[in-house]
Amino acid sequence: MNGSASGWEKRQLNKYFFNTEPIPRLSCHDPLAEELIAQEKPVVLTDTKLCDSALKWDLDYLAENMGSEKYMVFVSKDNKFKYYDEAKIRQYSSNFIPPTRRVDMSFPEFVRKLKEWKEGDERIYLQQGLNNTVGQAIVMDFLQFNWEWLNVLQKKNNWGPLTSNLLLVGMESNITPVHYDEQQNFFCQLVGYKRCILFAPEYYDRLYPYPVYHPHDRQSQVDFENPDFERFPGMTHLEGVETVLGPGEVLHIPMYWWHQIESLPNRGHTVSVNFWYKGGPTEKVEHPLKPQQKLAVMRNIEKMLLEALKDPAEVGPLLRALVIGRYTGQVAEGQEGKL
Amino acid sequence: MNGSASGWEKRQLNKYFFNTEPIPRLSCHDPLAEELIAQEKPVVLTDTKLCDSALKWDLDYLAENMGSEKYMVFVSKDNKFKYYDEAKIRQYSSNFIPPTRRVDMSFPEFVRKLKEWKEGDERIYLQQGLNNTVGQAIVMDFLQFNWEWLNVLQKKNNWGPLTSNLLLVGMESNITPVHYDEQQNFFCQLVGYKRCILFAPEYYDRLYPYPVYHPHDRQSQVDFENPDFERFPGMTHLEGVETVLGPGEVLHIPMYWWHQIESLPNRGHTVSVNFWYKGGPTEKVEHPLKPQQKLAVMRNIEKMLLEALKDPAEVGPLLRALVIGRYTGQVAEGQEGKL
Ligand SMILES: [Zn+2]
Ligand SMILES: [Zn+2]
Repeated sequence: MNGSASGWEKRQLNKYFFNTEPIPRLSCHDPLAEELIAQEKPVVLTDTKLCDSALKWDLDYLAENMGSEKYMVFVSKDNKFKYYDEAKIRQYSSNFIPPTRRVDMSFPEFVRKLKEWKEGDERIYLQQGLNNTVGQAIVMDFLQFNWEWLNVLQKKNNWGPLTSNLLLVGMESNITPVHYDEQQNFFCQLVGYKRCILFAPEYYDRLYPYPVYHPHDRQSQVDFENPDFERFPGMTHLEGVETVLGPGEVLHIPMYWWHQIESLPNRGHTVSVNFWYKGGPTEKVEHPLKPQQKLAVMRNIEKMLLEALKDPAEVGPLLRALVIGRYTGQVAEGQEGKL
Repeated sequence: MNGSASGWEKRQLNKYFFNTEPIPRLSCHDPLAEELIAQEKPVVLTDTKLCDSALKWDLDYLAENMGSEKYMVFVSKDNKFKYYDEAKIRQYSSNFIPPTRRVDMSFPEFVRKLKEWKEGDERIYLQQGLNNTVGQAIVMDFLQFNWEWLNVLQKKNNWGPLTSNLLLVGMESNITPVHYDEQQNFFCQLVGYKRCILFAPEYYDRLYPYPVYHPHDRQSQVDFENPDFERFPGMTHLEGVETVLGPGEVLHIPMYWWHQIESLPNRGHTVSVNFWYKGGPTEKVEHPLKPQQKLAVMRNIEKMLLEALKDPAEVGPLLRALVIGRYTGQVAEGQEGKL
């Protein structure tokens, strides 16, 4: 994979311990592209014109037109912006120390911080849902998105409603660490370059998500830059797919696919907007279940267990009693083999 | 504990790796006895007269009066009679090799086998629910059981209905390995001596029951005579209670309490009858849950998981993915500590 012609170079990419294959890059008119979407496999679409009206959303344009509200900006000591659920902090883990700090600020203030930033400063990342407070010009751009194409796709694939569009404005080298979402995502690059590394849902047992009630629910505990193979031995067998997404390109991140998104180093800030759709109504359940469905089953067990026990500190001991020595070791092998 | 006065000697007891305390032996008129029953703690009642009318149920009397039906007799190569669920063999584990063989035979035939038995022969154990095929004399004895006392106890403790009375006729040294039942049990000794070793329900994580869908559901995987501490490290912390039950004595084995029952060596055959009651309606759920309730939660998780996945061979991998690296190791500690 080398994209020097298109504005980025391979040596700009962090080296990780796993192998990746490139994500297919196709025209949205290519029948194979639609097929990949239908099969819930990732694909880069190069010519959707989905957000062409937003390709002009640079910092100055956004500062002028976003509106005068305050927007959600996360502040981090390093380049990682690991998501956490504020409600789950309040509910279960008052001792949790968030890895980033949320500071709401006006767009011009954000842009000023971005421009004044120098190595060693805290890093910032704006992540704000587009809502009815945005200015008139943004609304006009928004209305000119290629909704026609997207609506057809939504219908064909039986997705639920569009739930939100998140605007992301990040500094170069910012990383959103590997996690999965419970929605279909069309990820639209507007300004700058983002490296997107994805892993299939079947890797749910190799990426060790935090417990469901943890503020880092849906995030992997694994740190690609400092992998701890002793704690997370399954990691050794990871195989990913990846792409570098440039302005005007759209990546479909299917629901439950793991993804880590990195603004390329030394290439300036990035602007992206994503489209989140609810998954379709649960399909006819066929056995064996798909990895996505197994992941959902696991999530439900954790939720029910917390509901039954009330105290998150009791979930681990019960799960360990349920599994250790009963579903691990030779015992399990023997039982599963023989049963 | 030494019962030489009452017909058995301490040296007759197998030596195991865990410590035990004696189970309290009380008059059924002692208020403490009722309190222990109410608290679901085991107690031996020495004077209930519950089955005095059956103290004459020796082999000849039973041969003459049980009836002419065939009764359930289990045949084992050694002295262990580990229970298995025939329905679960059919449903999930056609490859399961039962550790004992069920052979139905008439009572006189069973008695003949018992009397002809010599060292090296297969061992036998009759385990037959008392039903409406038993002879008139047995019915009369049954009607003279101390139902009055038992019915009061049932009401006081809010138990459900009596579901069955199992008649057990075993050879000396026969062992029913450690397991738990999902019912309240009044275990009534008629002939010979039985060593009863019990463990509280909180040991659910130290006795490693088989998976719920396994034919050995509710049985511990642990073999007290050949303990495998590497596979089952939690075992090291076992502490039990025990008693030797003689003719006319009744042991309350509360629901979900682990128990291993051994006919004493060199003391001839044993005859016992038990009374199984359904547990009461679930009490008001208070948190933290009791160990019994946690065990029930675990059973439900396993059942639901099998219901969702359909294939028992898929349960283990999913449970391992759910727990290993997520609820084990330092991670879990940290999470539970901090949460
Ligand atoms: Zn995401
Ligand atoms: Zn039992």
